[in-house]
Amino acid sequence: MNVAIMGYGVVGSGTAEVLQTNASTISKRLGLTLDIKYILDLRDFPGDKNEDKLTKNFDDILNDESVSIVAEVMGGCNPAFEFTKKLLCAGKSVVTSNKELVATHGAELLKTARENGVNYMFEASVGGGVPIIRPIYQCLCANEIEQFAGIINGTTNFILTKMYKEDMSLEDALKLAQKLGYAEKDPTADICGYDVQRKTCILASLCFGKHIYPDSVPTEGIQNLSLRDVKYAKANGCDIKLLGQAKRFGDKICAFVAPAFVKKDSQLTNVEDVFNGIILRGNMVGEVFFYGAGAGKLPTASAVAADIMDCARHTEKRKDFGWEDSDGSTVVSPKEMPVSYYVRGVGSVAEVKKALSQVNFISLPGAPKNEIAFTTQKQTEKELDEILDSIKDFKLETKVRVFE
Amino acid sequence: MNVAIMGYGVVGSGTAEVLQTNASTISKRLGLTLDIKYILDLRDFPGDKNEDKLTKNFDDILNDESVSIVAEVMGGCNPAFEFTKKLLCAGKSVVTSNKELVATHGAELLKTARENGVNYMFEASVGGGVPIIRPIYQCLCANEIEQFAGIINGTTNFILTKMYKEDMSLEDALKLAQKLGYAEKDPTADICGYDVQRKTCILASLCFGKHIYPDSVPTEGIQNLSLRDVKYAKANGCDIKLLGQAKRFGDKICAFVAPAFVKKDSQLTNVEDVFNGIILRGNMVGEVFFYGAGAGKLPTASAVAADIMDCARHTEKRKDFGWEDSDGSTVVSPKEMPVSYYVRGVGSVAEVKKALSQVNFISLPGAPKNEIAFTTQKQTEKELDEILDSIKDFKLETKVRVFE
Repeated sequence: MNVAIMGYGVVGSGTAEVLQTNASTISKRLGLTLDIKYILDLRDFPGDKNEDKLTKNFDDILNDESVSIVAEVMGGCNPAFEFTKKLLCAGKSVVTSNKELVATHGAELLKTARENGVNYMFEASVGGGVPIIRPIYQCLCANEIEQFAGIINGTTNFILTKMYKEDMSLEDALKLAQKLGYAEKDPTADICGYDVQRKTCILASLCFGKHIYPDSVPTEGIQNLSLRDVKYAKANGCDIKLLGQAKRFGDKICAFVAPAFVKKDSQLTNVEDVFNGIILRGNMVGEVFFYGAGAGKLPTASAVAADIMDCARHTEKRKDFGWEDSDGSTVVSPKEMPVSYYVRGVGSVAEVKKALSQVNFISLPGAPKNEIAFTTQKQTEKELDEILDSIKDFKLETKVRVFE
Repeated sequence: MNVAIMGYGVVGSGTAEVLQTNASTISKRLGLTLDIKYILDLRDFPGDKNEDKLTKNFDDILNDESVSIVAEVMGGCNPAFEFTKKLLCAGKSVVTSNKELVATHGAELLKTARENGVNYMFEASVGGGVPIIRPIYQCLCANEIEQFAGIINGTTNFILTKMYKEDMSLEDALKLAQKLGYAEKDPTADICGYDVQRKTCILASLCFGKHIYPDSVPTEGIQNLSLRDVKYAKANGCDIKLLGQAKRFGDKICAFVAPAFVKKDSQLTNVEDVFNGIILRGNMVGEVFFYGAGAGKLPTASAVAADIMDCARHTEKRKDFGWEDSDGSTVVSPKEMPVSYYVRGVGSVAEVKKALSQVNFISLPGAPKNEIAFTTQKQTEKELDEILDSIKDFKLETKVRVFE
């Protein structure tokens, strides 16, 4: 069976490597051989072992009827969206690691695949090599998913781990991440949470069956976290993690991205450095947790290759992800969810005590005079903001949700 | 679509509950309704909500052509083996939580299913509700699995957790487990490792494609562990866990069950109480880890129900697990694997030092005089035994592998 790879960057070259290195195992498991016929990339790769397969012309793949499965690992929506749509309409199955495309056009592309009797799969789009997409829609399909919370960005988790374990500043940790190749030169998509936002959209759409679009997922990155907040978290027996979360609220869905205090008994606190971990709660299975390499050439490529194999097994059959389009009316803001908050600011302990019942003050040796930090009881953000605003002698500096 | 459940015990009643409680979600996801037509059990359940579905006659299910999927959750090989075989031959798909049956007759039943164009699925047989079977044969199918290690028995893990965290003796912890319903009156299958052995066979057969039978999996339970060994583990910066393990050794497979020292940086040390956790290493994905409720009515039933749904989706198609029969010639003994050992005994430190290079002695306040405990460098068990035997002034009391 002939396959094509679009994009010969990190994931694309990894996909070729997985298919070629494990070729005999893969053939044995499938009962057929997967041959890479084309690799689409505008760049030249002189001397590359797959040089003979390289093409700069998308139509070579589109018009070749012998190609039945295409891996789109180009990233971005343009031209990936147009290419994917054309391929699906031409009766080819497409698999992808492209979280931006799936988060933005997933429902539409799944519909196109359905209409053309082919498959569109995206296991590699969240969690890299960590099995998460199939476990949700296959292993947990007899459950109503109640909520999930995931550490699904390795870059920010690496930075937070360095801050937590080595008292490094955010700036220094980011520089180190860039030096090690974990962060891009322009780290905005990671640091500001957009990467997590896209992956959260994909997981939420899959868990709840309605497309959750990025613009309905309020997103806060780690850019405003100070080392002192990390230390307060530690002093409070917590870790601090950037989480993509979604929760069912009656028939509404609340999805958001933000840093969170995570209590030390949660599996999420065992996710360090560039690793990913996702906790999921089903109404029958309770809590399950998935962990592994959330990025990287071969782990991500191993997920792309698994999708290619699944397409090869399902040439006559469609996988149904139960992911429908939506108009956003099912989404509710996280501001309406009552949760406990960590709050740091400057002001008077007495005034805070007067205004907020049941706060736990956190003491941190060496903290500036007048700085106060505490966790609150559960309340909505709106309620908390109103109270904080009303305290005369208090200037808010940061607030972070406590994850439960 | 009509389904039948064989066995109305914990898992069977849970399966009915999952299918009935989540009926609307399940119908929506499948595009068809699953109706429980029969429940087979020799007992009476007067007043039970499913009383009208109960039958004591297996032939009711076997001969009813309208029943296409059967959940076998009776446990044991007899009569489950005969029943399953007949059902598969009659063109019905069978799903099961029965680890004993799958470990003993998996290859044969999969062959029977293949020959009859139906499916035999067993997600619930290992790890209860934790997705592990599908992740291995689908998500990680582009990998060669190099090894796995799993905490796959909740009872023994509960006992070890109590010993580790609360200094409870094995005996007291077992009594508590029995009181809480985590251990059976006759706890042999759990304590002596037979339950873990069966699950290890299933995972190993799936990972390596050859049936690994229970009699080729050397098995040691926790019955000989003393509280002092647990304390030595702690003093050595380790946890102590009962692991089911398998490893690829060239073209041979080594599978075994035994307690192990587990270093504190392993995800396995975060698996406490009755929970299950499995680490898997693929040659492309690296390490992945799965965690959740390894037993219990609804978690296990959620996996049974997922298999039923998968069978309903695949009436025309067979799932291929790549699990072939074997004559045991691919199996190699764990005694031939060089590993580091923890050793406890009575004797002379000087003599031990003389005989074994590079040992790390572990000191434990309050340990009996003359007792010595240490970890060794990597060597095979045979090599270690020969050296230990040769030490004049040393009486071996326990040795435990250090997991890496």
